Amino acid sequence: MGYDGCAIQFTFEDGGERLVHVSPGESLLEAAKKANVAIDAPCSGNGSCGKCRVRLLSGELRSEANRHIDADAYAAGLRLACASFAAGDAVVLVPDIASAYKSKIKTADLRGGREAEVFAAFRRDLTERGLAGDSGVEIVSVALPPPSPDDPAADRERLLISLAAALGFAPGEDRIDISLYALRKLPRALRAFDFSARCVLRREKRGGGERAVLLDIFPANEEPPLAGLAIDIGTTTVSALLADLRTGAPIAEGSAGNGQIRYGADVINRIIESARPGGSERLRRALLDECILPLTAGMCEACDLPQDNIYRVAVTANTTMLHLFAGVCADYLRLEPYVPAFFGAGVLRGADLGLGAHPDAEVVFAPCVGSYVGGDITAGAFSSGIYRSEAQALLLDLGTNGELVFGNADFLMCCACSAGPAFEGGDISCGMRATDGAIESCRIDAESTETDCTVIGPRGARAAGFCGTGLIDLIGELFRCGIINARGKIVRAGRRVYRDEAGVAGYITVFADESESGRDISISEIDIDNFIRAKGAIFSAIRTMLAIAGADAADIASVYIAGGIGSGIDTERAVRVGMLPDLSAERFRYVGNTSLAGAYAMLTSRAACEEIARIAEGMIYLELSSHPGYMDEFIAACFLPHTDATLFGEARR
Amino acid sequence: MGYDGCAIQFTFEDGGERLVHVSPGESLLEAAKKANVAIDAPCSGNGSCGKCRVRLLSGELRSEANRHIDADAYAAGLRLACASFAAGDAVVLVPDIASAYKSKIKTADLRGGREAEVFAAFRRDLTERGLAGDSGVEIVSVALPPPSPDDPAADRERLLISLAAALGFAPGEDRIDISLYALRKLPRALRAFDFSARCVLRREKRGGGERAVLLDIFPANEEPPLAGLAIDIGTTTVSALLADLRTGAPIAEGSAGNGQIRYGADVINRIIESARPGGSERLRRALLDECILPLTAGMCEACDLPQDNIYRVAVTANTTMLHLFAGVCADYLRLEPYVPAFFGAGVLRGADLGLGAHPDAEVVFAPCVGSYVGGDITAGAFSSGIYRSEAQALLLDLGTNGELVFGNADFLMCCACSAGPAFEGGDISCGMRATDGAIESCRIDAESTETDCTVIGPRGARAAGFCGTGLIDLIGELFRCGIINARGKIVRAGRRVYRDEAGVAGYITVFADESESGRDISISEIDIDNFIRAKGAIFSAIRTMLAIAGADAADIASVYIAGGIGSGIDTERAVRVGMLPDLSAERFRYVGNTSLAGAYAMLTSRAACEEIARIAEGMIYLELSSHPGYMDEFIAACFLPHTDATLFGEARR
Repeated sequence: MGYDGCAIQFTFEDGGERLVHVSPGESLLEAAKKANVAIDAPCSGNGSCGKCRVRLLSGELRSEANRHIDADAYAAGLRLACASFAAGDAVVLVPDIASAYKSKIKTADLRGGREAEVFAAFRRDLTERGLAGDSGVEIVSVALPPPSPDDPAADRERLLISLAAALGFAPGEDRIDISLYALRKLPRALRAFDFSARCVLRREKRGGGERAVLLDIFPANEEPPLAGLAIDIGTTTVSALLADLRTGAPIAEGSAGNGQIRYGADVINRIIESARPGGSERLRRALLDECILPLTAGMCEACDLPQDNIYRVAVTANTTMLHLFAGVCADYLRLEPYVPAFFGAGVLRGADLGLGAHPDAEVVFAPCVGSYVGGDITAGAFSSGIYRSEAQALLLDLGTNGELVFGNADFLMCCACSAGPAFEGGDISCGMRATDGAIESCRIDAESTETDCTVIGPRGARAAGFCGTGLIDLIGELFRCGIINARGKIVRAGRRVYRDEAGVAGYITVFADESESGRDISISEIDIDNFIRAKGAIFSAIRTMLAIAGADAADIASVYIAGGIGSGIDTERAVRVGMLPDLSAERFRYVGNTSLAGAYAMLTSRAACEEIARIAEGMIYLELSSHPGYMDEFIAACFLPHTDATLFGEARR
Repeated sequence: MGYDGCAIQFTFEDGGERLVHVSPGESLLEAAKKANVAIDAPCSGNGSCGKCRVRLLSGELRSEANRHIDADAYAAGLRLACASFAAGDAVVLVPDIASAYKSKIKTADLRGGREAEVFAAFRRDLTERGLAGDSGVEIVSVALPPPSPDDPAADRERLLISLAAALGFAPGEDRIDISLYALRKLPRALRAFDFSARCVLRREKRGGGERAVLLDIFPANEEPPLAGLAIDIGTTTVSALLADLRTGAPIAEGSAGNGQIRYGADVINRIIESARPGGSERLRRALLDECILPLTAGMCEACDLPQDNIYRVAVTANTTMLHLFAGVCADYLRLEPYVPAFFGAGVLRGADLGLGAHPDAEVVFAPCVGSYVGGDITAGAFSSGIYRSEAQALLLDLGTNGELVFGNADFLMCCACSAGPAFEGGDISCGMRATDGAIESCRIDAESTETDCTVIGPRGARAAGFCGTGLIDLIGELFRCGIINARGKIVRAGRRVYRDEAGVAGYITVFADESESGRDISISEIDIDNFIRAKGAIFSAIRTMLAIAGADAADIASVYIAGGIGSGIDTERAVRVGMLPDLSAERFRYVGNTSLAGAYAMLTSRAACEEIARIAEGMIYLELSSHPGYMDEFIAACFLPHTDATLFGEARR
């Protein structure tokens, strides 16, 4: 029988459905990607994380029970999408992935003093340093002589004369461009208020002298909003801020999950996907359509701002995200010698990138330093202030990956370590982002081995998984209580300890009857191993940089911790597990999203853009993977806390 | 009964159909516009031209027989769309309007010597004057040092260094932009041929010094085509040319009907339509989607050129067409003091205008001089050579409207006259464009009043109507033979003369049994009156300009006739009817589409752009409608040949 395709129907919990035709043998995860169906798959389908569970409702799939799906679960129709293969037509129920990564968009109006304190302080600082309120976007008022039969010059030519005079350009110098957007509005805007108008201009000063672009025009009796958009594109989460370009005040904020998550939790899998036919455009659209565009629309709605009044955009992100956002080939980021397509992206416009902003809004990207140290880090080096610190300091950006900057006003060194997404919940079977339902801290009673957790969310919220800080706490406690040994193996028995058919042991933190999902929330030795490798990557990166600089951990006056790991990090526990160097607690400071703060600075200040460009130019980029000695450091760090226990004397007191 | 809408179904001869709901009382022509159905309506629905015939197939319409639809035709279901009003549901057959205005797209590959002679001469002329081959688009070869672990700079930054050196810019001067389009191709293009590449650049020299934009990049072993697009947007017809920007050689040509025709044959009705809600976008899309985009695609296909390789575009058109093409508010063109939104449009890009070209292709518009003298005329003043003629010369551009330029190298004066679309077949009941089936010339036997016609098209082609030159011939002959008098009234009887119920007489040129449509091809006194007003407008405009310049008709050394009226104009007959001044035949020259020739010059030469800008700046614009004395001249010219018969002594010999 000429049977050459399987119809897979994905059904959602809200009743929606999507149909796709695939070849026999294709995995369900592949089918889901083709159909643009979001399935949580942080390990990108290698079977390790166990998160891509779906339920087979009818039809057939080639699939077996495995360590993530036991016989009961299998009998109930549960399957791992990455380990199930098309064998005929099938109908599959896809769970709501809100608990982990769903592109849930949150926006808030920030006017009326609800601005985050960290931003207010940062703004004061920028103002004191003369870096605020210089976005290059400004309003200029003009009053033109109205046309008459004796003076029938066209509107554009009439305006150019007045505008050149207002800007101090000599007549006929050709230093002003009028955007098509403004040209289209010009005739009615001029006639609405007797040829008096307000012009929204962008000043430009580039090689070749000063110029101006007319972006928009309003009758003189209107007070147009002058807004800008700062975006931080994280691999997992996108954060954004709308600011008033006149005052620099934030007016709305928002965040959303990065819609590319279905193509893999980490940048490598996204790059691989982007190299497939149509992949680059697919990833670009997933980010835009499911995240940046609705996020922008939501923020604009929250503060009643027309999107066309966004006249400037600043974007920070890691190198891969910047490439994928711009639709630029990212293949060579992951191939030796790891060369990006661009460090700085030059002159880009809102319409080129498909943004919900003025089509001629200038879009500035924070400059990258290497394939794995991007604009998020150069922006963070700026906003953390490390680049002008006298004492040596360390910036740790712990998001989906880990990036580090070490130095002071005299030198800056940076590197990326493959910490993986463990601190944002990826690659950990019960891991999740630091949102409602996440266990953010826990304590274990050394005697009873019983546990007590704090869960993010309203009082009485049930636990759904661990976020990064909860994971650090839990593993620190398991180690302190002797439940796991220095290699992360479970060495004590108890009612919370289990061992599966494959012999892998684990510790149940929350039993099924108390969890949100009705499944045990547990951590297995595989998860612990993933965590140890992640913390080992960070610690060994710190050690390697210190060694190159000829410095010692004690020389680090301040450690700034930034990124998605969350504000609740217990640095003492993090030291205890050997993730952070053994320094006293007051040297650590959680500084939030330094990347978004840097984007905000770039949005509101061209001087900040220049400063960040200088930072990027002067930063020494260290390629850890090829650095001699790093591998030994890493292996030595893959113990709790470390093979060299003398490094952690203070914390083990 | 709550009946509040009529469903009108338009059925096409090819079987297609379109449904629209309208309110009772709305005209069928309005319904057709709403449904985007093309119905030929050059008089824009005032009932005078009789061209908007449709056939009522079923249902009801409120409509009556009239001078265009006699009782028999009415009984057969024929209706004028503009004079039929919705009264219930109806099904209506819409005729194929190919015979008059259909957006029939013709393209041809010009490579291999099939270039039009007029262009070859014009090109030689440009070359001799040093104006050719300077489009600003050029190819520069670069060889970059390949990246290595010791030199991991990003592709963009690596390229900028080599490119700055190749262009003679100092390093770090920031004089080169890389378009997002090129950035997206950069990584693969560099790696395809060992980091040797060919860069397509645009050089720019504007206020503030020299700059360059990287538009495209190819591996060094590829020879990319470097093409440009010249477009002349006529109110009725759009003509275009693809040229090789390296050599300046035309490589393809094409023409198509302007898709806006359904919104009216003349610019005034289009402006009115554009001011309605959504009208500006509707007119812009009609021009783009039905005409410019398929025309570009067809030409590119004819010569195997990817559209992205069109790196520069030059556009000539009248002021209204330029505004509508750019989507710029055109309302004030038709309101005193008749001020356009722009004379020059500044810096525009292919993507902004929605063209099928490289998104960053620079689009240059020929500059306008007034609301009714546009870029088609400034371009024509350049390409006709009148602007550098020693002797005084006259340029007549007779398309859908009439524009005139008079002067020489020392001064140029221009004006528009409301000649209407008579010379392109509009406003004449059996009028049509100069395409297959058009009567282009005719002779009448003075004794028998019988006629002998020449029809455009293959041998034996049946006549479908009159084009401009045929109309001039016919009326000249009717007058010569005494069939009509100086006022255009029919004063002789004969088998070809008829008189309708309303008492309006006419002359049948081709009887129904010999015509293509099976209807008589005739000219009525109303048509003759329209023609007399058109020719009177032209002649009185010439007289007015001569008077202002203190010149006499005899001072005109050359009369260049351009535009859609066609190459077949019999200037002797045109003098006989009083349309052209009484000069000997050798002073007249048909110069074809001077607007497209000017667009071609602007495409291939930045120096030509500057020259045309200078021409526009120096041109004196005469607003005829408010010029004292013009109305008297016009009234005096509305006779055959003129009330002052001494002006036409020579022709009447």
